[in-house]
Amino acid sequence: MRIDIITVLPELIKSPFEASILKRAISKGLVEVYFHNLRDYSTNRHKNIDDYQFGGGAGMVMSIEPIDRCISALKAEREYDEVIYMTPDGETLNQQIANSMSLLKNVILLCGHYKGVDQRVRDHFVTREISIGDYVLSGGELGAAIFCDAVIRLIPGVLSNETSALTDSFQDNLLAPPIYTRPAEYKGWKVPDILLSGNFAKIDKWREEKAYEHTKNRRPDLLEK
Amino acid sequence: MRIDIITVLPELIKSPFEASILKRAISKGLVEVYFHNLRDYSTNRHKNIDDYQFGGGAGMVMSIEPIDRCISALKAEREYDEVIYMTPDGETLNQQIANSMSLLKNVILLCGHYKGVDQRVRDHFVTREISIGDYVLSGGELGAAIFCDAVIRLIPGVLSNETSALTDSFQDNLLAPPIYTRPAEYKGWKVPDILLSGNFAKIDKWREEKAYEHTKNRRPDLLEK
Repeated sequence: MRIDIITVLPELIKSPFEASILKRAISKGLVEVYFHNLRDYSTNRHKNIDDYQFGGGAGMVMSIEPIDRCISALKAEREYDEVIYMTPDGETLNQQIANSMSLLKNVILLCGHYKGVDQRVRDHFVTREISIGDYVLSGGELGAAIFCDAVIRLIPGVLSNETSALTDSFQDNLLAPPIYTRPAEYKGWKVPDILLSGNFAKIDKWREEKAYEHTKNRRPDLLEK
Repeated sequence: MRIDIITVLPELIKSPFEASILKRAISKGLVEVYFHNLRDYSTNRHKNIDDYQFGGGAGMVMSIEPIDRCISALKAEREYDEVIYMTPDGETLNQQIANSMSLLKNVILLCGHYKGVDQRVRDHFVTREISIGDYVLSGGELGAAIFCDAVIRLIPGVLSNETSALTDSFQDNLLAPPIYTRPAEYKGWKVPDILLSGNFAKIDKWREEKAYEHTKNRRPDLLEK
């Protein structure tokens, strides 16, 4: 998989790709991630990429031309499955979308900043709009990092033990059951006896029950899916 | 506001705090953000902070002791309004939660990693559990960065123009209307005439209608709130 991230602040999202799982996925060659600084595509001598909005109002809008030039340059090199705009009014990311995205070959992620991009970018260049949740961020950069983390960890070979991803929350619309590690007792707080019993059939059953109970208490909406 | 982030990978989330709005908010003294490396609180000579889970199964669990030691050290210095655990099975972050969080004084953010923390940490130390969305990430670090970005930008004085945050998506349960900037025509794609009319009363009305229409098409659930 190849991900091209278009942003005005490449330095803002560098560190998540230079540590832990994303770093290993990149160094193993399982995914390629490239950052494109939108300012490099400005034809303006001040390298401006934004302007005041038509009709008045606070906040700047990202101009269509540099975005067109950047996307066109990328598309001239290869075909893209999706040009995704990270925006709070997009389709809300969930585990199913992350699963399907992990199967794509080439993806462009366009990070909005300021008030967002000129609507004509969305109408003519963007093929999909994704939000990571119902809250506003200062830009799409962290959203893009979230998207990459959620998707890249699902690519086979990225996690050392594939069952580790498959037993995570959401993969079967259930939240994960409670987990415990040593010591068996800490300040008088004990690990449930069943987990120390060595009876793995009973442990599996207990975990299923707890996962169901936890989901029913916290997120009954997941059980309806 | 003061935010203490407890993590095994402080280097993973450094860059979002060293650029743009978060950097400015910190340098203006409007918020203080501290990273605490959990390994510094391990009593183990290998600096281990995780262990296998009781009852078997893939993935490591973060141990209670280093987390207890770190939280206790922080609490000995000052009172905290919340000890928040970033976890996919927590309460889903939204703009209303971000608004209320921006009024707090001292907050601890505990980032889960691997399969998460020992359940006893959640039962005895955590006061609130927050998820940024229905997808699994490789750790709570990016979730903590999202939380900080969503919350810090709401602190008065952080954004240069306060109306800029108030007119964002979600603040009134409406998505933002379309926005445009120069040029008025690009490759034959024109900006709506109304925005060039100079009639600000009509423009406001058009924006309200578009925001409502856009929300009705994409997120009718927001209108029900």
